[in-house]
Amino acid sequence: MTGNERKSYSLAEISRQLGGEIEGDPATTVSRVATLENAAPGSIAFFANERYLPQLKTTRAGAVILGEAARKATGLPRIVSSNPYAYFARVSALLNPPSPVWPGVHSSAVVDASALISPQAEIGPHAVVGREARVAEGCVIGAGCHVGEGASIGAGARLFPGVTIYHGCVIGERVTLHSGVVIGADGFGIAMDQGHWVKVPQIGRVVIGNDVEIGANTTVDRGALDDTVIEEGVKLDNQIQIGHNVRIGAHTAIAACAGVAGSAKIGRYCRIGGASGIAGHITIADNVEISTYTLVTKSIRQPGTYTGAYVFEPHGQWLRNAVQLRHLADLADRVKALEGKPARPRRSKP
Amino acid sequence: MTGNERKSYSLAEISRQLGGEIEGDPATTVSRVATLENAAPGSIAFFANERYLPQLKTTRAGAVILGEAARKATGLPRIVSSNPYAYFARVSALLNPPSPVWPGVHSSAVVDASALISPQAEIGPHAVVGREARVAEGCVIGAGCHVGEGASIGAGARLFPGVTIYHGCVIGERVTLHSGVVIGADGFGIAMDQGHWVKVPQIGRVVIGNDVEIGANTTVDRGALDDTVIEEGVKLDNQIQIGHNVRIGAHTAIAACAGVAGSAKIGRYCRIGGASGIAGHITIADNVEISTYTLVTKSIRQPGTYTGAYVFEPHGQWLRNAVQLRHLADLADRVKALEGKPARPRRSKP
Amino acid sequence: MTGNERKSYSLAEISRQLGGEIEGDPATTVSRVATLENAAPGSIAFFANERYLPQLKTTRAGAVILGEAARKATGLPRIVSSNPYAYFARVSALLNPPSPVWPGVHSSAVVDASALISPQAEIGPHAVVGREARVAEGCVIGAGCHVGEGASIGAGARLFPGVTIYHGCVIGERVTLHSGVVIGADGFGIAMDQGHWVKVPQIGRVVIGNDVEIGANTTVDRGALDDTVIEEGVKLDNQIQIGHNVRIGAHTAIAACAGVAGSAKIGRYCRIGGASGIAGHITIADNVEISTYTLVTKSIRQPGTYTGAYVFEPHGQWLRNAVQLRHLADLADRVKALEGKPARPRRSKP
Repeated sequence: MTGNERKSYSLAEISRQLGGEIEGDPATTVSRVATLENAAPGSIAFFANERYLPQLKTTRAGAVILGEAARKATGLPRIVSSNPYAYFARVSALLNPPSPVWPGVHSSAVVDASALISPQAEIGPHAVVGREARVAEGCVIGAGCHVGEGASIGAGARLFPGVTIYHGCVIGERVTLHSGVVIGADGFGIAMDQGHWVKVPQIGRVVIGNDVEIGANTTVDRGALDDTVIEEGVKLDNQIQIGHNVRIGAHTAIAACAGVAGSAKIGRYCRIGGASGIAGHITIADNVEISTYTLVTKSIRQPGTYTGAYVFEPHGQWLRNAVQLRHLADLADRVKALEGKPARPRRSKP
Repeated sequence: MTGNERKSYSLAEISRQLGGEIEGDPATTVSRVATLENAAPGSIAFFANERYLPQLKTTRAGAVILGEAARKATGLPRIVSSNPYAYFARVSALLNPPSPVWPGVHSSAVVDASALISPQAEIGPHAVVGREARVAEGCVIGAGCHVGEGASIGAGARLFPGVTIYHGCVIGERVTLHSGVVIGADGFGIAMDQGHWVKVPQIGRVVIGNDVEIGANTTVDRGALDDTVIEEGVKLDNQIQIGHNVRIGAHTAIAACAGVAGSAKIGRYCRIGGASGIAGHITIADNVEISTYTLVTKSIRQPGTYTGAYVFEPHGQWLRNAVQLRHLADLADRVKALEGKPARPRRSKP
Repeated sequence: MTGNERKSYSLAEISRQLGGEIEGDPATTVSRVATLENAAPGSIAFFANERYLPQLKTTRAGAVILGEAARKATGLPRIVSSNPYAYFARVSALLNPPSPVWPGVHSSAVVDASALISPQAEIGPHAVVGREARVAEGCVIGAGCHVGEGASIGAGARLFPGVTIYHGCVIGERVTLHSGVVIGADGFGIAMDQGHWVKVPQIGRVVIGNDVEIGANTTVDRGALDDTVIEEGVKLDNQIQIGHNVRIGAHTAIAACAGVAGSAKIGRYCRIGGASGIAGHITIADNVEISTYTLVTKSIRQPGTYTGAYVFEPHGQWLRNAVQLRHLADLADRVKALEGKPARPRRSKP
């Protein structure tokens, strides 16, 4: 799914499409993007962080994208932008367009006669599309994908090979799902009854908004009764687990290996760190940032950054210190005693 | 794999099948399950937690399932049960039966001539069944599943699309495996020898008991020499990793993203929290509960709940506090000195 | 992919091939490997850890592999090796050779006409090989695998069923990839611009060296601009996430569920514990060991073992102690005050 034809653009053409102000020769042409360090003539790189100043000084790039403050930091042809990293992303998209869609159903695909497939959609080899499923125009359903009964895939969505969409789930427009993603498997609903677990049928759906991207091997469970909802513009990295009846607010980004337990509600524009965990049934406000490896066990009402990760150290030092965690309450009591205050009443052990 | 035909049941019919005591009109019919909040007339909801009392007061449900203590909490037609949540699960299963099995082998499936496939089993499109594998009656092998050489799938098991069973593994009756599950990949057995890792062939199997359910993208490794065993009634959520030669006792439930390292033995009726970790070669007794995000590094001999998760706080406060973890042993020594006791002998650094 | 034909070897034959010194009858034959505990006559077991001495005393094994120090610990026929576990691994490989390669392309596979497939490679059912991809001699591409456009699979590599290789990625010789592995999905590169995430096209590749093994459902993201690199001899367990532009040094082993964030550089011969996390853009020296559940947030320049995991305890005790973590800096200040020193200046809250 790449477009390999490498086209050249002049800085003038780029700035005409994307804005920004040119310093140096507007006729300078570039045909690929690169890091400052590995750029060759004909490449355009970006400078958005002071610590790469040495690389800026020595880069062989043909042109550079940078911010206002760095306007004079190089003599190379350059484009000045208020957001050089996002500008670079757009230039890269210009130079690396997605691969074209090849409309049609591969002869090895198995598509139910009642499915509605746009003639402008591409259905890859060995894909399976179930009864009354819908695939809109401009979709690419990759090799070996499975679109379940009654599921709906919005216009321009791309499913890389090996994606599974369970029955009834709804995928928005321009959604990208990477390989191994599973949308709509049963949530973990079980009830203990006389020594056996009774399964609670999971009859909700997963509903995914427009412009969502989901990384490889991430799983989003269907709702138990109501739906699991991923709002528009959400970006999920790889190997994330989203439990049943979760709602993730628009434009929130979650890094790899995080887990969100059932019925949690996450706000808009949140940034959730890798391998973090959000407990079930809690609510997180808009614009909250959760650090890597942090377990959030209570609702968060205020924007801000929240953290709860253990600091690492050489193993022998950790051994000395970690064992004291088991005596921390006692230590606090002893300090209180030294201060001449009465110790807290001791809670009975569980 | 859903049954979409929506059938109505009267409370009298339900109670005849599932027990429970009716209050109100036994002729009241319901055709779907719902939450108290989103129920419509014709829906049956459940009430099992005092904090949903406001929703009980305002629900539009046609009937409610509730416990003895709440018998009088609503005037709606209701069924009183000693375990309302499990009762609800059974009602939902009645109203949402699994999709029927369509016996037969899809023309695109590749089934080895020596495989034993029950004529009452369904083999989906693009599934592959290897040499001398067995698939019993009532199984559904979903699209694109792979059943390895000599593997055995018990009666009534359901494999959703894209499940992989490696050679020789044994899956019990009525087992459910969700998409992306991998059963029987090699355990992580390597020996360092003169600067290179030598692979230890993994020649055990995975043996899964009856009535086990395993969530999407969970992996269970085959044994190194002896087998990895998941006993009957175990419920595993998504994205769990089970190492080689692990044994998980009957009716234990494990939440998403947990990991169990090689040769650990977990008892019966345990509840293991999400993203928790069980170290290799340890033993956990029956009826143990492990909290979310807890790493268990030693055997646990007594039932009870065990926890080891870091509390989260606003980032600036965390910074102030977390750095002190690296001085905790020293702090304890200083308190001891203030108390007039000698400090512990200092262990040399590693 | 197993070889089931069980062949017998005498200790003399084994030692001729693998070295080691025989004690007892060199004509003793063995046909399978086993644990000391479950060995039958005809089995060969190994003894590498004093704590299995009771099992050594009672084993029914036909022969045992052990170290110099244990040479006299049993009267059974035995092979003395300086590295009994690695020796055992090699004996097991002798007795359990990988299944043979069956060269040829399965009739259900979809192979682009421009792909270069060695006539000595095996392409399984429903596999898909894209434009200009290359598959070298001795490869096994399992059922339902997808080899993307321009990807290259080195000689002797084995892809178990359901592996996905994105376009342009390079897989070395004798690499083993287990089911559900995804190589080369897009890295998590997004830039916020005026309330929307702009995707940064991921145009690097994944390059995997020779003799690498990667466990089930592990994901390795392609580079943003430059490549993600896994050097030769690296061993990755299941469900690991490797971010874009990571480099993992030769012969490093990483246990299950670990995550390595973008642009981290890990040295050679490191051992990274399960569910650990390596932050982005940091560097870890050669020969570093990271403990299970440890988050590494800064570069590590010195070999050694590093740890940062919370100790677990009964839940009630944990409650008493964990709450004190939020007052640790204050506690340290109070101890300082008791010692008659001024408290540290208080940082303002975030």
